[in-house]
Amino acid sequence: MKIGGRHYRSVWVEPDGWSVGIIDQTKLPHEFALLRLAGAEDCARAIKTMQTRGAPLIGAVAAYGLCMALRADSSDAALDRAHAMLLAQRPTAVNLRWALDAVRDAVRNRPRGERVAAAYAKAKDICDDDAATCEAIGEHGLRLFEQAWAKKGRRGKLDVLTHCNAGWLATVDWGTALAPIYKAHDAGIPIHVWVDETRPRNQGAALTAWELGQHGVDHTVVVDNAGGHLMQHGMVDLCIVGTDRVTANGDVCNKIGTYLKALAANDNGVPFYVGLPHSTIDWTLDDGMKIPIEERGAEEVTEIAGRAPDGTLTRVRVPPQGSAAANYGFDVTPARLVTALITERGVCPATRAGLRALYDSHPKR
Amino acid sequence: MKIGGRHYRSVWVEPDGWSVGIIDQTKLPHEFALLRLAGAEDCARAIKTMQTRGAPLIGAVAAYGLCMALRADSSDAALDRAHAMLLAQRPTAVNLRWALDAVRDAVRNRPRGERVAAAYAKAKDICDDDAATCEAIGEHGLRLFEQAWAKKGRRGKLDVLTHCNAGWLATVDWGTALAPIYKAHDAGIPIHVWVDETRPRNQGAALTAWELGQHGVDHTVVVDNAGGHLMQHGMVDLCIVGTDRVTANGDVCNKIGTYLKALAANDNGVPFYVGLPHSTIDWTLDDGMKIPIEERGAEEVTEIAGRAPDGTLTRVRVPPQGSAAANYGFDVTPARLVTALITERGVCPATRAGLRALYDSHPKR
Repeated sequence: MKIGGRHYRSVWVEPDGWSVGIIDQTKLPHEFALLRLAGAEDCARAIKTMQTRGAPLIGAVAAYGLCMALRADSSDAALDRAHAMLLAQRPTAVNLRWALDAVRDAVRNRPRGERVAAAYAKAKDICDDDAATCEAIGEHGLRLFEQAWAKKGRRGKLDVLTHCNAGWLATVDWGTALAPIYKAHDAGIPIHVWVDETRPRNQGAALTAWELGQHGVDHTVVVDNAGGHLMQHGMVDLCIVGTDRVTANGDVCNKIGTYLKALAANDNGVPFYVGLPHSTIDWTLDDGMKIPIEERGAEEVTEIAGRAPDGTLTRVRVPPQGSAAANYGFDVTPARLVTALITERGVCPATRAGLRALYDSHPKR
Repeated sequence: MKIGGRHYRSVWVEPDGWSVGIIDQTKLPHEFALLRLAGAEDCARAIKTMQTRGAPLIGAVAAYGLCMALRADSSDAALDRAHAMLLAQRPTAVNLRWALDAVRDAVRNRPRGERVAAAYAKAKDICDDDAATCEAIGEHGLRLFEQAWAKKGRRGKLDVLTHCNAGWLATVDWGTALAPIYKAHDAGIPIHVWVDETRPRNQGAALTAWELGQHGVDHTVVVDNAGGHLMQHGMVDLCIVGTDRVTANGDVCNKIGTYLKALAANDNGVPFYVGLPHSTIDWTLDDGMKIPIEERGAEEVTEIAGRAPDGTLTRVRVPPQGSAAANYGFDVTPARLVTALITERGVCPATRAGLRALYDSHPKR
């Protein structure tokens, strides 16, 4: 997608042909800083410190980390060592292991002299596949947006509400929930996006707002409390969010607060869509309430990062010392509240039958 | 209520018998600073800058401002001038005008030599009435809490969720939504309160958490996004909130985000209560959707106040420069989502019939 009119992906090979560039996402939206990663250790550090984030993007950066490790030492021992080291940075991210395994499988049975080129080719495939998957989600979602825009009589703007950041900063390009927004914008539908700030980490206010602004998409940041009021007053034509895991029956696990917006959409007859690649479908679970919900550090709730009046990036504490805080990272939106799932294979109801109809030929990746 | 074991009201007459003390609420929760108001101008400034806030409390402080104006000059002209000056500080607050009118009515037909004493007596009445009203809400709510505690088998803690600050800092004492919590705590029911931080002004994280902590009530601050997840997982026994206006049919206008919590409570079978004094009932409206919703400054959304690592109080900006923000102050929870209203006259269904049964003898104040 575009930054200041120029096309970027969230990860790329530098002109030297081997080192890798990323955007330092810990500095966004206040500073646009690029980082050059010149070794597996650089990649590991960027993943660990969340300079790069989002499950698909982490996998892609780790894949290039393995390429660079092989460039330094193409032995089996070095390959396994780098694989383990990169995997340890975010041990719960499914895509991280999948991408590292894919690169290792691509080189393991090759002579050492061919390994580096094969690894870089596989890493490029991973990136291109992710971008293509997200673009396909965008194309399928675009048709729903076109219908909504026609239903509105093509007057004013198409008002879309989103929660958290499921944009191209979390993937290699396009994003999941934001892909249809970019496709609709590029197709000339006048889009306006209500951006939930998405406490506690503020990915909406910090990242989604920045992405949309750079691409020229009209948007307004609101507190997470506002969506119900907006929907009660006809100010939202549709909601679209991403997801971390969808169960086989269509329950949607996503950033904490998603469920509240789905309730408001349901109460006000607003369509509620979820954009997802096949890799987030968990065919082994048929009840979202069985998904364990990660509890994160209380300081993400009590301390808020931003830019101080003097321009420095700092954190401020809001509650009194001594007050406890709890930080549940995700919630589960029951399938009954989801209007449809938008995947790279098309749109389906949030049901087992709906998902199987799209994926039965390849139920697992 | 108590601060560090000592009883306070949120406004009091100082030992000199005429000046007034308040807590500087702009410094909470990080600093506990008392202010002495020694004239009508001091009172006006404290109201304007929100050093004192909450509709009932603003009325009480303004009443004392009128007392001090009369102490300096007890003429009709001075009375009218001070009345107009104080009223202009927060022109939309209904209680402010009501309290100023009450003091003026109490002194207007008296000889000048009796006016100051009559004004202070009326201001004291206003404070005592407010505290008694809130305490009565607490007593009626306590019975609902006792029932909920019995229903839980008196095991563990009674888990209560609240939104915003409807505590004693917004009234003269006790609060509205928090009064039953204090009564239940003092009656020995082991209470635990989930405190919504309440973006954008963070009154929950800053004020409710501080109030509860000072009184020794166990509590945990959560982001506004968390309540749905908590209710889905049986971690909330009841919700209780305050209100800015209740329509004659029982619709509840309260801080933005209240509606989302009421939807989640309804979806999960959790009782949703509203604590209110009679003065917030608007008998002229029978549809909450007709209430105009105040839009406040975008900077309340984009800039967050707190304590920096060096101890200073500062603000940090979260979204990118150039991103618009919208700030709707309130939303409306339809009566169908409200389990019951808790007033100083007792508990009633959120219906016209319910309210009339309590208030028919005195439908208007």
